[in-house]
Amino acid sequence: MSHDEAARRDREDALAPLREAFALPADTVYLDGNSLGALPKAVSARVQSLLADEWGQDLIASWNRHGWIDLPERVGEQVAPLVGAAPGQVLCCDSISVNLFKLLATALALRPGRRTILVEAGDFPTDRYLAEGLASFLGEARCRVREAAGDQLAAALDDDVAVLLVTEVNFRSGRRHDMAALTRAAHEAGALALWDLAHSAGAMPVQLDACGADLAVGCGYKFLNGGPGAPAFLYVARRHHDAVQQPLTGWLGHRSPFAFADRYEPAAGVLRYQAGTPSILALRALEAALSVFDGVALEDLRAKSLALSDFFLAAIDAEPACRAVTVLTPRAHGERGSQVSLAHPEGYAVAQALIEAGVIVDFRAPDIVRFGFAPLYNSFADAAAAARCLATVLAEERYRAERFQARARVT
Amino acid sequence: MSHDEAARRDREDALAPLREAFALPADTVYLDGNSLGALPKAVSARVQSLLADEWGQDLIASWNRHGWIDLPERVGEQVAPLVGAAPGQVLCCDSISVNLFKLLATALALRPGRRTILVEAGDFPTDRYLAEGLASFLGEARCRVREAAGDQLAAALDDDVAVLLVTEVNFRSGRRHDMAALTRAAHEAGALALWDLAHSAGAMPVQLDACGADLAVGCGYKFLNGGPGAPAFLYVARRHHDAVQQPLTGWLGHRSPFAFADRYEPAAGVLRYQAGTPSILALRALEAALSVFDGVALEDLRAKSLALSDFFLAAIDAEPACRAVTVLTPRAHGERGSQVSLAHPEGYAVAQALIEAGVIVDFRAPDIVRFGFAPLYNSFADAAAAARCLATVLAEERYRAERFQARARVT
Repeated sequence: MSHDEAARRDREDALAPLREAFALPADTVYLDGNSLGALPKAVSARVQSLLADEWGQDLIASWNRHGWIDLPERVGEQVAPLVGAAPGQVLCCDSISVNLFKLLATALALRPGRRTILVEAGDFPTDRYLAEGLASFLGEARCRVREAAGDQLAAALDDDVAVLLVTEVNFRSGRRHDMAALTRAAHEAGALALWDLAHSAGAMPVQLDACGADLAVGCGYKFLNGGPGAPAFLYVARRHHDAVQQPLTGWLGHRSPFAFADRYEPAAGVLRYQAGTPSILALRALEAALSVFDGVALEDLRAKSLALSDFFLAAIDAEPACRAVTVLTPRAHGERGSQVSLAHPEGYAVAQALIEAGVIVDFRAPDIVRFGFAPLYNSFADAAAAARCLATVLAEERYRAERFQARARVT
Repeated sequence: MSHDEAARRDREDALAPLREAFALPADTVYLDGNSLGALPKAVSARVQSLLADEWGQDLIASWNRHGWIDLPERVGEQVAPLVGAAPGQVLCCDSISVNLFKLLATALALRPGRRTILVEAGDFPTDRYLAEGLASFLGEARCRVREAAGDQLAAALDDDVAVLLVTEVNFRSGRRHDMAALTRAAHEAGALALWDLAHSAGAMPVQLDACGADLAVGCGYKFLNGGPGAPAFLYVARRHHDAVQQPLTGWLGHRSPFAFADRYEPAAGVLRYQAGTPSILALRALEAALSVFDGVALEDLRAKSLALSDFFLAAIDAEPACRAVTVLTPRAHGERGSQVSLAHPEGYAVAQALIEAGVIVDFRAPDIVRFGFAPLYNSFADAAAAARCLATVLAEERYRAERFQARARVT
């Protein structure tokens, strides 16, 4: 029944043809786009032409002739509408980790006299690690990190908090924060709000400007499909431009890099957040990947994302064997990202058994199996197949096989 | 005569066949490999297979199956013999700028009580900018920057200098420092030596271990031919491992990133210098590019590099029209890198006239034309053609044409 229903839903899905824009392996249900997005077909051609025609033929002249020098800014402008940012505020460069360092330092400089970075307990490690690395580097007199549970963040804001750093959609549970409300709470306490959009950009509309967000970072290789380790992006609200010199003062953030001046003078606006020379291969790949979003309404993408996870949840609700798992992701649409997280005491082995059967999910310690739904290319048939496979793995207790116990290096 | 002599030298050059490993444009003499190395043919195939077979087919499993997670370390081990580093000390990641921040912070932590970063006046801007960015971020009580002329660096070392930061081969003049002597001088003053190898790695033997260097950074896209904005590399001498936690504490520098632990625990050794997720496209390209060095003796490469620039210098010495330029690069072999820098009052226009004639050089403010000799693929015919073309441009005063005056965005 779920099979027929899935087929019907796929036939009625106006976004279904977008799947053709991706190179997906046969006989595989890929539900890990929240960790590594699938390969957009446009990327291969674009990268090949970068190699053969730009680097190979025009060599150094390509910096001007093919606009390499502007790529961080131009690809940033492709990301901007996906995150609700007016032009001139988004840049693609470096990694989330490095960008967090720049933006946390910016936040401290914008709130002199305050020294606390407030983070969510259980948020993605790099966010907390970077905050603590910065605090330990600057010393406690200038910076410290405090954590609070997700539902206690607003209450934990006090007059020492310079910045609230929080991921909109939690990587473990898939729970989504109310960006507008938390940003307002931060501002009422005199703090700034720095949003990590790793699990939201590209899967749903994000409203940075409308929510009054101050700063943001996000990931190029999850729902934006820019390829493994794609450049990250950062956002600095226009009202904070030109007030602060971020500490990673590399030459490409200089007002006039090719003057090779002795003194650093930051470029205007968000451009000063560039540091060293960016990978043009990686930027060209991300640029091509983002072209898949052309003409796609983010509201439609969000509606499909929710429909997919609703469909999956209903399917596992209907399977008695699936009573062995606990659904961690909130059922309420407003509180959910684009993944469904299930807890099981043998979570690692359950994930491996699903993967062996061709349903690619991932595991997050201590006991979570994540089903990521990428609305650009996942289908209702994918959701139905995943639920069926999970029921079989649980009913047959396949996860008890010894081969599923040994932990891989990367989970 | 110089034409015949060049042909003879090329026939006798045992390294000449290596040129076939590169895709070079026809009818062009490319002498800007010190800014952007040419495209190794191996890169295109490797990148295409990364896209189609690894990312496209194996998707997230590639982190384990294709060893993506180890690439920063593995590509670092390919660079290690080129810079005279025993295994376990080199990592490929991020940009030179970001890596300088990590290593300058490391140096300050290794020399508590000292606060000065000593830099060379007129060194590549990003090195100085990063040092000053760090000083301004930490405050004068903890860090400050002092500069000295290249021949005054040893004399400027005092008991407040924590680290001497210097580029082995100067980007403007092409002058090479004595790494062993300057490192020794730094150590005698109780300071560390941090070497920037942007203009030496891949063009000549570098002896980091033998010279007792403490720290180093280098570029992936010049003489290593890794492509525009390729990942940089960093070196930390084994004796300094595990003593310091660098400030960019991203999750991939964690001892066990996939435990997603709340607390940051740095990985052992040089691996803790990783921050965020690296671009796998960029690392695969660099990995393929480095394979061109397999079986090449660095002494032979250096001998050819010096022979090429000697040949070029002799050819311009013989051209009366070339008396209009001043040779900035030292004539002594030991004091020279792999470029020849010529000064001319109309340097920018002279460079543009050469480029229009198919001799690709570059310009560095205020008046320098750089001729970079990449011994892996440049020939004596290239050197002869460049000298002839320069003589013509100068004799005919072609550089006076108006079209050569307007400055491009990237020089």
